[in-house]
Amino acid sequence: MLVRPKPGILDPQGQAVESSLRELGFAVGDARVGRVVDLELEASDAAAARAEVERMCEQLLTNPLIESYEIELPG
Amino acid sequence: MLVRPKPGILDPQGQAVESSLRELGFAVGDARVGRVVDLELEASDAAAARAEVERMCEQLLTNPLIESYEIELPG
Repeated sequence: MLVRPKPGILDPQGQAVESSLRELGFAVGDARVGRVVDLELEASDAAAARAEVERMCEQLLTNPLIESYEIELPG
Repeated sequence: MLVRPKPGILDPQGQAVESSLRELGFAVGDARVGRVVDLELEASDAAAARAEVERMCEQLLTNPLIESYEIELPG
């Protein structure tokens, strides 16, 4: 799953990436840094897998006040 | 772009996620944690954008000894 800072939330890591890239001569606009978490789990079907990962996100993997998440399942 | 620890490289963040999820009662296998970096940049076409982001990855955004990266461009 992908976890990103919500729009409007301060992202110091993204700001550091932005300014470092500009110092190196790259012309970049906004940069935002989040996390990618790859997990192995067994589930009966895609819907069950998604529901399980949603519970993990809400209980541990994200801070819903400042982060949003996106779940990608293998095709 | 997505930056992930290479296979075989120790990933303490992933291990922490794994053991915390198990303590919460989730049945998970391997967990790996990496970064997602979202960037805005102007480029004449997709190939030029990809080449520019590759340079950024090599110069700043990844450690090629221990990390691999994957570039996704907006469709």
